[in-house]
Amino acid sequence: MSNDDKKYSSVHYNSYLRIDELLSNQVLRSEEVGKPAHEELLFIITHQVYELWFKQINHELRSVINMFDDGAVTERNMGVTVGRLGRVGDILELMIKQIGVLETMTPLDFLDFRNYLFPASGFQSFQFREMELLLGLKEEKRHTYHNTDYKSVFADDKKHVLKDLEEGMSLFELIDDWLERTPFLQVGNWDFIEAYKKAVENMLTNEKVAIMETDILSDKYKKMRIDMLGDTDTYFGSIMSEEHHNKLLAEGSVKLSYKSTVAALLINLYRDEPILQVPFQLLAKLVDVDELLARWRYRHAQMVMRMIGRKVGTGGSSGHEYLHKTAKGHHIFSDLHNVSTLLIPRSELPELPADLKQKLGFYYQG
Amino acid sequence: MSNDDKKYSSVHYNSYLRIDELLSNQVLRSEEVGKPAHEELLFIITHQVYELWFKQINHELRSVINMFDDGAVTERNMGVTVGRLGRVGDILELMIKQIGVLETMTPLDFLDFRNYLFPASGFQSFQFREMELLLGLKEEKRHTYHNTDYKSVFADDKKHVLKDLEEGMSLFELIDDWLERTPFLQVGNWDFIEAYKKAVENMLTNEKVAIMETDILSDKYKKMRIDMLGDTDTYFGSIMSEEHHNKLLAEGSVKLSYKSTVAALLINLYRDEPILQVPFQLLAKLVDVDELLARWRYRHAQMVMRMIGRKVGTGGSSGHEYLHKTAKGHHIFSDLHNVSTLLIPRSELPELPADLKQKLGFYYQG
Amino acid sequence: MSNDDKKYSSVHYNSYLRIDELLSNQVLRSEEVGKPAHEELLFIITHQVYELWFKQINHELRSVINMFDDGAVTERNMGVTVGRLGRVGDILELMIKQIGVLETMTPLDFLDFRNYLFPASGFQSFQFREMELLLGLKEEKRHTYHNTDYKSVFADDKKHVLKDLEEGMSLFELIDDWLERTPFLQVGNWDFIEAYKKAVENMLTNEKVAIMETDILSDKYKKMRIDMLGDTDTYFGSIMSEEHHNKLLAEGSVKLSYKSTVAALLINLYRDEPILQVPFQLLAKLVDVDELLARWRYRHAQMVMRMIGRKVGTGGSSGHEYLHKTAKGHHIFSDLHNVSTLLIPRSELPELPADLKQKLGFYYQG
Amino acid sequence: MSNDDKKYSSVHYNSYLRIDELLSNQVLRSEEVGKPAHEELLFIITHQVYELWFKQINHELRSVINMFDDGAVTERNMGVTVGRLGRVGDILELMIKQIGVLETMTPLDFLDFRNYLFPASGFQSFQFREMELLLGLKEEKRHTYHNTDYKSVFADDKKHVLKDLEEGMSLFELIDDWLERTPFLQVGNWDFIEAYKKAVENMLTNEKVAIMETDILSDKYKKMRIDMLGDTDTYFGSIMSEEHHNKLLAEGSVKLSYKSTVAALLINLYRDEPILQVPFQLLAKLVDVDELLARWRYRHAQMVMRMIGRKVGTGGSSGHEYLHKTAKGHHIFSDLHNVSTLLIPRSELPELPADLKQKLGFYYQG
Repeated sequence: MSNDDKKYSSVHYNSYLRIDELLSNQVLRSEEVGKPAHEELLFIITHQVYELWFKQINHELRSVINMFDDGAVTERNMGVTVGRLGRVGDILELMIKQIGVLETMTPLDFLDFRNYLFPASGFQSFQFREMELLLGLKEEKRHTYHNTDYKSVFADDKKHVLKDLEEGMSLFELIDDWLERTPFLQVGNWDFIEAYKKAVENMLTNEKVAIMETDILSDKYKKMRIDMLGDTDTYFGSIMSEEHHNKLLAEGSVKLSYKSTVAALLINLYRDEPILQVPFQLLAKLVDVDELLARWRYRHAQMVMRMIGRKVGTGGSSGHEYLHKTAKGHHIFSDLHNVSTLLIPRSELPELPADLKQKLGFYYQG
Repeated sequence: MSNDDKKYSSVHYNSYLRIDELLSNQVLRSEEVGKPAHEELLFIITHQVYELWFKQINHELRSVINMFDDGAVTERNMGVTVGRLGRVGDILELMIKQIGVLETMTPLDFLDFRNYLFPASGFQSFQFREMELLLGLKEEKRHTYHNTDYKSVFADDKKHVLKDLEEGMSLFELIDDWLERTPFLQVGNWDFIEAYKKAVENMLTNEKVAIMETDILSDKYKKMRIDMLGDTDTYFGSIMSEEHHNKLLAEGSVKLSYKSTVAALLINLYRDEPILQVPFQLLAKLVDVDELLARWRYRHAQMVMRMIGRKVGTGGSSGHEYLHKTAKGHHIFSDLHNVSTLLIPRSELPELPADLKQKLGFYYQG
Repeated sequence: MSNDDKKYSSVHYNSYLRIDELLSNQVLRSEEVGKPAHEELLFIITHQVYELWFKQINHELRSVINMFDDGAVTERNMGVTVGRLGRVGDILELMIKQIGVLETMTPLDFLDFRNYLFPASGFQSFQFREMELLLGLKEEKRHTYHNTDYKSVFADDKKHVLKDLEEGMSLFELIDDWLERTPFLQVGNWDFIEAYKKAVENMLTNEKVAIMETDILSDKYKKMRIDMLGDTDTYFGSIMSEEHHNKLLAEGSVKLSYKSTVAALLINLYRDEPILQVPFQLLAKLVDVDELLARWRYRHAQMVMRMIGRKVGTGGSSGHEYLHKTAKGHHIFSDLHNVSTLLIPRSELPELPADLKQKLGFYYQG
Repeated sequence: MSNDDKKYSSVHYNSYLRIDELLSNQVLRSEEVGKPAHEELLFIITHQVYELWFKQINHELRSVINMFDDGAVTERNMGVTVGRLGRVGDILELMIKQIGVLETMTPLDFLDFRNYLFPASGFQSFQFREMELLLGLKEEKRHTYHNTDYKSVFADDKKHVLKDLEEGMSLFELIDDWLERTPFLQVGNWDFIEAYKKAVENMLTNEKVAIMETDILSDKYKKMRIDMLGDTDTYFGSIMSEEHHNKLLAEGSVKLSYKSTVAALLINLYRDEPILQVPFQLLAKLVDVDELLARWRYRHAQMVMRMIGRKVGTGGSSGHEYLHKTAKGHHIFSDLHNVSTLLIPRSELPELPADLKQKLGFYYQG
């Protein structure tokens, strides 16, 4: 059939969506072993739905990665990128809520078929690993389970795919590169980070003087307020000195390059300038996705705890302790969260030079 | 392999959940015709997820139907029944939230592949029709679309399944029967409905006298309050007279039998008696499921409106108008909602005779 | 105290948030009349929470209105506007979910204190009316209840505020004006609506020819597909002719001016151009808010039905029927929904002239 | 006015709900110091809404506590108890979702007024502490902040209330007592825990033999399966020996008494018996409430991290680290979660003696 004919060929809901094939893939182990358990269908279907959503998420992540690859991202793509990451967030929210559906299966119900699943385990979800790698979870940041490589449970062809992903550019790295390319950090004589440093120092000095001079605060409170302000070292240290930042980078306690961090700060502070509005949304969406994934891990840990208590999982995992750790440690974009530490009030923001302000606007100026 | 060997055969996440098969069933029409559209995957996956949930819902409904069939329901099954209907409700809530995920596809995106789907349509979802029939949606209550039988879009074997479901006992009918079997409507000399009627009449008379006598209300307000009370005809008519109820039944404006309605009222009023606590939960869950399904229809109508505006759907449907009508008219358990109209305050409730109270308690009495 | 001293004066959570005052305002009528009802507190608190959210929503709407007033909206404000409307949407979602909390009070529980509330009613919520008027609900579009002015239940000072709002510029009108000011509808020799009309006509002609010529469709399906396409009259009529649009405007079946509708169409079609990305988000958020408010009305109607069945409400309202009608008829931005009807696939979109494309980009061009 | 007159006195929505008073309690510090910040209203309102929900939750908890106090709980109250705890859960779900509304305020927005709030802090919420104490959070289990007593931030009268709550019976203790009173642990010659122990031992022995004998498992897998089974010590130790349990109790690693734990296990295993259906729901609701509160703490920690990064909070707290710890450590009913570890498949359950089965049924036996 020609493409044109195909265009006009009729389509039935059932064949288009491959409903018969889809619905023939729920095969209960409990039935196979001759002890049918009503609740196993729920177990299968909730996991299959998760895998369908993983496929969708990875589809979106790959498309965003492609848009950023080779420095190809343009302003025209920004809106679409934000939309697709927003969708990833919406899917993650749905996946979090879905845990509640699986929890309608009680632990006692689970025991009716749990033994027949050995040694299957969520650790064996290939698409979940793809998702982590597409986002940019690095080998060295991973909590390992029993000191075994997470790839060991997969067949060779799948191991290769994961290996290629580990070596390719992840969303994290592409965002790092894109931030590095931000052209507005230095315009003519104006240097953003210099202006920012001065503003921070002024703010801290003035505020400290005011605090010390006021009659209205007790000494204890004066001390607390000054602690809360922080000093250039505690909060602003890494941004004040590229050298210090690079030391943290080498230690692994930050992951974004110095220049990218400065750019992320600029975008956060001057988000109202037209050219920065959608980039600011992009940074916010990345933090959203990161938090939602952590929240899913946390809920997952709660569910495992509820379902099997302190027992060992079917795949031999100690279950919820491991999941709890990943909920805390497997953030990808924590440096973007931490930009909050560097923000200063709008009233203290350095004024932008007029020519920069124009550059940050639209070509068409009303 | 013997069943025992099967019990110990090892299982991998991937083969158990048939992930490869599952993930090979998203075939984009837009790719087939040589014009790949990024958003079509979302369209396919959201619909496939819906079908997986329909399968789960129908699995639960069938299991509940089996428990009620042939008068087989026992008190031991009540807790499980409530749990499974609760799960159906939780799945429907998830399905409602999921509409928001599909709505991240904008109408313009949809146009990139909409033409290639003709004449596929949600009207062709077989499992959705099964669900409606399992619950008890009757042919004569259905809003039809273009005066065609909803079964006409299905192949013959599926038509037969639907026909059998139409003729079999639905959840509605089994609940109707179960309510009819409630043994506590008449115990010794005590007749629930007689005692209830007297209570209603007393309440209305006393309240009206009090309203007319108080100095604190204006005439206008007195009239309003009396209207609000209603009289025996407007609100209580159908329960006061079996004959009147049967007329409404013949007209199709109520669906539960007289005796079942009386039993549903008794369960609502005396829900605190031990033997009625879980039956009361059951009635509440049925109303929940009914409302959630209506809410899903309503949201679906909103989405269609947003997606294609006033256009005709791919299946030729006028889309959102039809869906709006079904959201309003396709309730199954509306008679259980309407029990609210018949309730009277606890302070007006007829006291239960001591022997009945004992019967409604547990065998073990502390 | 000087402002500076105030800045440093210490603040306790309790006094800052006026917790004591806040928590002293739940006064149960059932206690006042000597018949304490456990559930009345929930009734009071859920309504008070709604009023707090209404205050927040109106705060956001007023701030957005101020930004648009006197043509004052600038590109710098666009991002903030979208954020604040997004927040209004998030609050409405929370309000919808909250109905489920009120529904944990059963109809029988409500009867324990319902009589003491006469004739209080949600119709008497002043802030809700403010919200409707700020959005732009017009008197003539309102479903009335018993032919009485909705303002009649308020004291004179509040009536005046509502009257002023009725006469002032609502968000709807300001958006209408802002769309009218869109400068890109005609640039040099290029006229958007002319180019669009030609594209629609080409598309319809080509598609019809192709449908008629293909061997793969039956005559019945050919007819269906052609109906689905629509012709210039059914779907595109009002945008093809300003005169026709103005007739619809006079009849009240559309509310946006012709020029605004054209601008909304342009923004939807060319949303990827940098200068149109955030305006597109704005139009989408307005549709979101409109739909969420309708959904809240719909859920509210469901809850009233569940709570009092077919009875008359405490304020004398026939309750859920009225609410159902408002869920359907009280849309403000339905013309923005209907833009979907006018969209054409990206592949059919008229190419923008190079100078216009530049105008729609950023001043800074990488 | 007499109570009867009060009953008929007219009520306006506005005065009944004290709307004017309610809406006069949002006083912006940023306005007081002459620097109005748009976003401060959201900050105030979200916190006030939380306090209203805390009031509602504490109202429900107190009513449940009263029902259990002095051994007063009867079967008639069970349904109501489950309903009210279910409502507490629904409110907590709403509160979790509400965090997303506060997060629409960006960190930069917060800086516009954050300084004026010093040293107010969520640590100063009295009702939150009440809630923790009503549930049963014990002093010695609390993560402290800077080694200061959590009561130190409150005025003396409030300190006393908290002290009284610390010393009174919390929900945890009343549940512990109620479980202890379960009468079905020993009936005639039948001793539940003896029968259970035998069943566990049989199950473990048979399963181990079968695992060792099968040809289908490798040695490595045999070992894993046997580990997964656990032995009487690892999983079943504390329930097999009262002495061992009491040691754990003394150490603080369990909190429920031995007899209560046995009773909770019985209720979980024999939940289908009519008299145990609602008690099982009760135990499940307690676990729900516990998990939802932990989830709220976790989300709260995420929000604080997002809002202020690594900075110190206005009250001097190190914010999100502390909150993370409480999300993990402040469970009240963890022993009820852990019952999962003790469950055995239904097929292994000891059969109940006929007379016990009758005792667990209704007086009325169809």
